Amino acid sequence: MKKYQFICDYSEGAHPAILKRLEETNMCQSVGYGEDEFCAAAREAIAARLGRKDLDIHFLVGGTQTNATVIGSILTPYQGVVCADCGHINVHETGAIEHSGHKVLALPSESSKITAEQVDACFADHYNDVNHEHMVQPGMLYISLPTELGMLYTKEELKAFRKVCDKWNAPLYIDGARLGYGLVSPACDLKLEDLPEIADLFYIGGTKQGALFGEALVIVNPALRKNFRYHIKQNGGMLAKGRLLGIQFGTLFTDDLYFKISQSAVSKAFRIRDAFRDAGFEMLADSPTNQQFPILPDELLPRFAERFGFEFWQKAGEGLSGVRFCTSWATTDEAVDALVDFISSLK
Amino acid sequence: MKKYQFICDYSEGAHPAILKRLEETNMCQSVGYGEDEFCAAAREAIAARLGRKDLDIHFLVGGTQTNATVIGSILTPYQGVVCADCGHINVHETGAIEHSGHKVLALPSESSKITAEQVDACFADHYNDVNHEHMVQPGMLYISLPTELGMLYTKEELKAFRKVCDKWNAPLYIDGARLGYGLVSPACDLKLEDLPEIADLFYIGGTKQGALFGEALVIVNPALRKNFRYHIKQNGGMLAKGRLLGIQFGTLFTDDLYFKISQSAVSKAFRIRDAFRDAGFEMLADSPTNQQFPILPDELLPRFAERFGFEFWQKAGEGLSGVRFCTSWATTDEAVDALVDFISSLK
Amino acid sequence: MKKYQFICDYSEGAHPAILKRLEETNMCQSVGYGEDEFCAAAREAIAARLGRKDLDIHFLVGGTQTNATVIGSILTPYQGVVCADCGHINVHETGAIEHSGHKVLALPSESSKITAEQVDACFADHYNDVNHEHMVQPGMLYISLPTELGMLYTKEELKAFRKVCDKWNAPLYIDGARLGYGLVSPACDLKLEDLPEIADLFYIGGTKQGALFGEALVIVNPALRKNFRYHIKQNGGMLAKGRLLGIQFGTLFTDDLYFKISQSAVSKAFRIRDAFRDAGFEMLADSPTNQQFPILPDELLPRFAERFGFEFWQKAGEGLSGVRFCTSWATTDEAVDALVDFISSLK
Amino acid sequence: MKKYQFICDYSEGAHPAILKRLEETNMCQSVGYGEDEFCAAAREAIAARLGRKDLDIHFLVGGTQTNATVIGSILTPYQGVVCADCGHINVHETGAIEHSGHKVLALPSESSKITAEQVDACFADHYNDVNHEHMVQPGMLYISLPTELGMLYTKEELKAFRKVCDKWNAPLYIDGARLGYGLVSPACDLKLEDLPEIADLFYIGGTKQGALFGEALVIVNPALRKNFRYHIKQNGGMLAKGRLLGIQFGTLFTDDLYFKISQSAVSKAFRIRDAFRDAGFEMLADSPTNQQFPILPDELLPRFAERFGFEFWQKAGEGLSGVRFCTSWATTDEAVDALVDFISSLK
Repeated sequence: MKKYQFICDYSEGAHPAILKRLEETNMCQSVGYGEDEFCAAAREAIAARLGRKDLDIHFLVGGTQTNATVIGSILTPYQGVVCADCGHINVHETGAIEHSGHKVLALPSESSKITAEQVDACFADHYNDVNHEHMVQPGMLYISLPTELGMLYTKEELKAFRKVCDKWNAPLYIDGARLGYGLVSPACDLKLEDLPEIADLFYIGGTKQGALFGEALVIVNPALRKNFRYHIKQNGGMLAKGRLLGIQFGTLFTDDLYFKISQSAVSKAFRIRDAFRDAGFEMLADSPTNQQFPILPDELLPRFAERFGFEFWQKAGEGLSGVRFCTSWATTDEAVDALVDFISSLK
Repeated sequence: MKKYQFICDYSEGAHPAILKRLEETNMCQSVGYGEDEFCAAAREAIAARLGRKDLDIHFLVGGTQTNATVIGSILTPYQGVVCADCGHINVHETGAIEHSGHKVLALPSESSKITAEQVDACFADHYNDVNHEHMVQPGMLYISLPTELGMLYTKEELKAFRKVCDKWNAPLYIDGARLGYGLVSPACDLKLEDLPEIADLFYIGGTKQGALFGEALVIVNPALRKNFRYHIKQNGGMLAKGRLLGIQFGTLFTDDLYFKISQSAVSKAFRIRDAFRDAGFEMLADSPTNQQFPILPDELLPRFAERFGFEFWQKAGEGLSGVRFCTSWATTDEAVDALVDFISSLK
Repeated sequence: MKKYQFICDYSEGAHPAILKRLEETNMCQSVGYGEDEFCAAAREAIAARLGRKDLDIHFLVGGTQTNATVIGSILTPYQGVVCADCGHINVHETGAIEHSGHKVLALPSESSKITAEQVDACFADHYNDVNHEHMVQPGMLYISLPTELGMLYTKEELKAFRKVCDKWNAPLYIDGARLGYGLVSPACDLKLEDLPEIADLFYIGGTKQGALFGEALVIVNPALRKNFRYHIKQNGGMLAKGRLLGIQFGTLFTDDLYFKISQSAVSKAFRIRDAFRDAGFEMLADSPTNQQFPILPDELLPRFAERFGFEFWQKAGEGLSGVRFCTSWATTDEAVDALVDFISSLK
Repeated sequence: MKKYQFICDYSEGAHPAILKRLEETNMCQSVGYGEDEFCAAAREAIAARLGRKDLDIHFLVGGTQTNATVIGSILTPYQGVVCADCGHINVHETGAIEHSGHKVLALPSESSKITAEQVDACFADHYNDVNHEHMVQPGMLYISLPTELGMLYTKEELKAFRKVCDKWNAPLYIDGARLGYGLVSPACDLKLEDLPEIADLFYIGGTKQGALFGEALVIVNPALRKNFRYHIKQNGGMLAKGRLLGIQFGTLFTDDLYFKISQSAVSKAFRIRDAFRDAGFEMLADSPTNQQFPILPDELLPRFAERFGFEFWQKAGEGLSGVRFCTSWATTDEAVDALVDFISSLK
C-alpha cells in the first residue's frame, strides 16, 4: 500500500515553477555572491509586495544560518537573545547562537507562545538587579511566526512586543521560516506589509515554502544594516551562485505564488485537523497553520506509521504522544483523502 | 553607630598569616607563571592533604575565570554543560561560558540542589531524541559545593552524580568557591580527600576563604590534563607573578589554616542562623554553611540596613525578601553579638 | 558586441545533467538533512571512485562553511591551523576561522605554494620555544589543491606534508574546491584515489565544478569522524533538503562527469594560456589548471574589459596587473576563440 | 656564587610601599568588584596625573586579559586588530584575541616598530579591494609602548598613527605594560598627559612596574565606555576583592612612585647597556628602556647563565643569540655591579 508523507514541509524538491525558472536561466552568466540581476529583481519584487522601498534585503541559504548571522550581528558580547523556551534557536540549532558567543534567555511558553509582559519583566529584572553586570544583558527579542507549534501572534500581541522592545531599545527579530503559512491563515489578522512596522528585521522563509532552499532576510532598521554582507560571508552563508536565491524568490514573488502555495497547504492542513477533531482527538495546540499536532494513543502510532509519514513531537501524558503532520505545496488531495479516511475509520 | 558588614565573605583583605608570608617572601626572586618553588610547595601541600600524588594542580586568579577555562577545555563545540538553574555559571558570570561557545543546560533546582535522576534524564532525553544532532549535546556536569544557597550534597548524592557521569562518559566538575565552609559543616559527611574519588576535577576556593584572591584547581582525571596551561594562558588566567598564588595556598594549607578559617566562620553563621530562627524567621534554604538566607519583611530591611551590611537575594513572597548574611575568617564576635542582639530585639 | 565571461567558474547555473536529474527526482519524497537515499547513493559512488569503503562522506553547501566546520571540529581552543599566506582561509573568508576561535598560522608562499620543510619548522619552532604555552600551538595543516593561483603539488610534495603531519601528530586537510581541474591536469601525477593515503580529510568541490552548489567532504581518519553531523548543524551547514546535494554529486560521479567537466575546462584554459604566452605576456604563476593569471599592462585592461569578463588579482609591478581568467564546464569554444583572437591581435 | 636575576621585571613581589599599604588597609571592609573607595581614590589620582577628569578608568588583573577584553569590546565580529608582527597579542597570548573571534592583522615590523604609512596602507588596501567583504576588515590599531624590544615611538610618530586612525575611524589602543619605563626614558619626548590626546584607550601597566599585579585601563573615547564592566566580568577579569587593585595603583600614583620606580630601573638598564656596548656587543635593537637585548655568541651563554638569569629571545645569526636582560624597582646596585664587571671582564 502506498505510503504518504506528512513528516515535514520539505520532503520534495521545489515548486515546479521554480525548477522551470532555474532551467530557463541556467546558461545566463552573472556575477556571484548575490550581486546579480536576479537577486536585484527579487529584492524589488519583495519590496514591492511590502510596499516599501527603504529596505535592505539579503538572501541566505538556511534558517539556522540566518538566525546565527542575524543575532551575532546585533548583540554585543555580553548580551543575550530573549525567546520562548521552545524557540528554534533554543532547542534545535545545536547551540549555534552560543557558538557565536551569546546566551539564549529562554522564557517559559504556553502553547509555544510568550507574552510582551514576560519580555518586559525579563528586561526589568535585569536592570533592577544591583549586580546586573554580573549577568547576561537581554539585548534583543526573537519571535517565531508561526511558532514551533504552528501558532500565531495577533497584530495586537506583536505590537505589544514592539512597544516593549522600544522601551528597552532592543531590536525585534521575527523568524518567518513558515511565514506564508501564517499570513494566509484565517486566524491571522496580520498582513505581510505590516511586518516592517513591527519588526526591526524578519525573514521570509523559502526552504519550507516551496523553494529548493533559501531565506529572504529583510532588515528594516537602518542601524542594523551596516556591513551585513561581511557577517553573511563570515558565517559561511554567502552562496557563490547567489543568483539561485534571487531566481527562486523572484519566482515565489511573481503572481503571488508564495501565498498560493501557503493557502493550498493550510487548506489541506485544516482538512486533517478537522478529521482529527471529529474523531475525538485532542491537539497539542490549536494550530491555525500548516502544521497540526494531534495527540495519539501510543498503540495507534504503528498503525498510522504503516500508511503515513509523520513526526513524533513530545510525550503528552501516560500512553499518549503529540505528533506532527505537515502539509506543503506538494501535498496531494489523494494523500489528504487517504489520511482523512483513515482517521475517520478510527471513530 | 558602628556598621557591621555581612554582605559577603570577601569584604576584607587576606588572613594575616597570608599577608605575613607575602611580606617574608617579597624579595625572593622566582620565575613567573606558576612554575616557581612556592607553587610547587603549595601543590605538594594540597596533594598531601588529599592523600594522593597523582594529581594535576593549577592556580588561577578567580572563580569565573576558572569555570570558563575548565569548561572550555573539556567540551567540544557542540556540547553544553549541565547544571542547576541557580548555578553560578548560569546566572552570575555574564555569560562567560556562552562567550567561550557553550550552552549551559540548566535543570530546575529545589533549594538550589539538583538530583542525579535529573541529570540522568537530561542525558537520556538527548540521546533518545531522533533529532539529537540538532540539539546541544550534554557534555559534562557542573556542581557547586556548597551551592549558591549554601546547601550541601551528601556523599551519597555525590556518588550518584558520579555514577550517572560514568554512565554517560561525562566529566564531573565541582565548583568549590566555598569548599571549606562546606567541608567543616556538621551537616557534611564528606572529607576533602573524598573529592578525587567523586570528581574529575574540582577547585578549592581561596578568594572567599581568606586569600587575597586565587583558586586551586585539582585535575584528577589524567585525560583532562593535556596542555592545560595553554588554556589558562589563553583565558587570561596565567598570573605573571604566579608565586603569589603558591604563597597563599601554601599558607592556607599549613597547619590546617584553611579549615580553621572555615570552622570559625561556620560557627558564627550558626549563631546568626539560630538567632533568626529563634526570632521566628523562615529561611530561603536550610543552609548548614557560612551563608544564611533569612526571609525578612520588607519593612524591616531599612532597620537592618542601618546597622548591618547584607545582600538582597530574591523576592520571597508578597512583602518578603530573602537576604544573605555571610561570615568569614574576618567576622568578629563583636559583630555577631551586635547582630544577634538586634535580631533578638525583634522578637 | 557580445561580452564573454571568464571572471570565475561559477558564472552559470549547473551542468545540464544535474538540472535534468533534479527535475526527474523533484516529486520524490525523502527525509531531510542528508539521510536520504540520494545522498547514500552519492556517497557510494564517490567511495567506489576512491576505491575504499571505510570513508565518512558528508555533503555541505559551500567552501567557507566546509573549511570553518572542519577546522573547528579538529582544533582545541589553543590550537591554530597552518597554511600558506595566500590560503583561502587566511585571506578570503572574512575571518571565519578566527570567528570560530582559531588563529591561522600563515607561512610565506612562493607562487602560492609552501613546502613540507616550512611546515616542519613551524611545528619545531613552537615546541622549541620555552614559552610555547604562551603561543598558539600549530594543530593541523591546510593545503589548497590546486592552490589559489591554480598551482599543483606533486605526489612527492604531498607525501612530504603527510610525513611532517605524522611526525607532529597533526591532521592534514586538503581544500579541493577545484580538485577536478587539478586531477585532470597533465601536470598532475596524482589520482583521486591517492588522496585518502595522503590526507586525513579533504573535500571534493562541487560549486566550482558544475554543481549549483555543494562540496563533498571525505573524512578518512576515523578519529576525526565523531559526531561530525553536530558540527555541520551548529555551523549552519545542514541543508534541510539535503537530497539536493546527493542528487548533484550522484550525477557528477556518474559516467565520470566530474572529470569530463574538468578536462574540458582545462583544455580551454590551456588555449588561453598559450595565446597569452605566444603574445609575450608573463604569468603570475605557471598554472596547469583552469585558472590562468596573465600579467597585463594597465592600459590594456579597459580594452580587455570591453569584451571579456575577468578578475583583477594583484598588482604585478609598476603599471602591471595580474588578472585571472577562468574556464569551466560552461565555457564555450566561441568564447575561447574570441579571447584567443583578441590576444593574438595584440602581438 | 650568588646568582642575580635579570630574566624579567616581575621576579619579586611588590614594591615595599605597596605591601605596607595592603597591610594597613587589610581589615577595612569594602564592597567588592572595584566599586570601593580605594579604587575611587586611585582613579582620582591617575586622572589628576593625567590632568583630565573626563576619563573612564578600570583596573584589571593582567595584560593578556586586558588586551582581550579591550579588543573584544571594540571590534564587531568581522573586524580584526592591526598590529606589529611582533606585537604581544600576535605572538605571546596563546591566541586570546582569536579565541574571542578576531583576526590579528600583523604588519612587518622593523626593530619591533611599524609606521603610520603601513597602517594607512593596510586600511586602504582593504577598502580598495572589490572583494573586501570577503576579507577581515581592519577595525582598530594596537600599539605597544614601549614595544616588545623596548623601543619607543616619538610623539610625532604617535600623532601620525592618530591621524591615520581618525582617517579610517578606527580606535587607537596603546598597550602600556611597561609604560613607565618608556615615559621616563631620556629618549622619550612624550608625557603621560599626552596619551589621552593620542589614544582612544591605553593601559598603565602595574604588574611589570612594581605591583603584585594589575593594569589600569584608561578609556578616553566616550563611545568606547558603554557597559565596559560587563566585558570585564565576562572575560573573568573582575577581581572580587577589587580594592587590591585600587590600593596598589593608589600607592603607585602617590608621590610619583610609579615614575621613581621606572627611573631607577632605566638608569640601571643603561649601565648594563653601556657595559655591553663598551665590550663590543651589538644589540637586537637600540632600546632606551628597561629591557636590553644584547647579541651574544652562543658559547658565552653558559658562562653568563652560571651567574645571571636572563631570557633567550631569538636567534641573531649563525652562532649568535639575542637575549634579554631586564631591570625593575627591585634590581639592586649590587646585581648591576656584578653584571657590569662580568661583561667588562669579557673585553
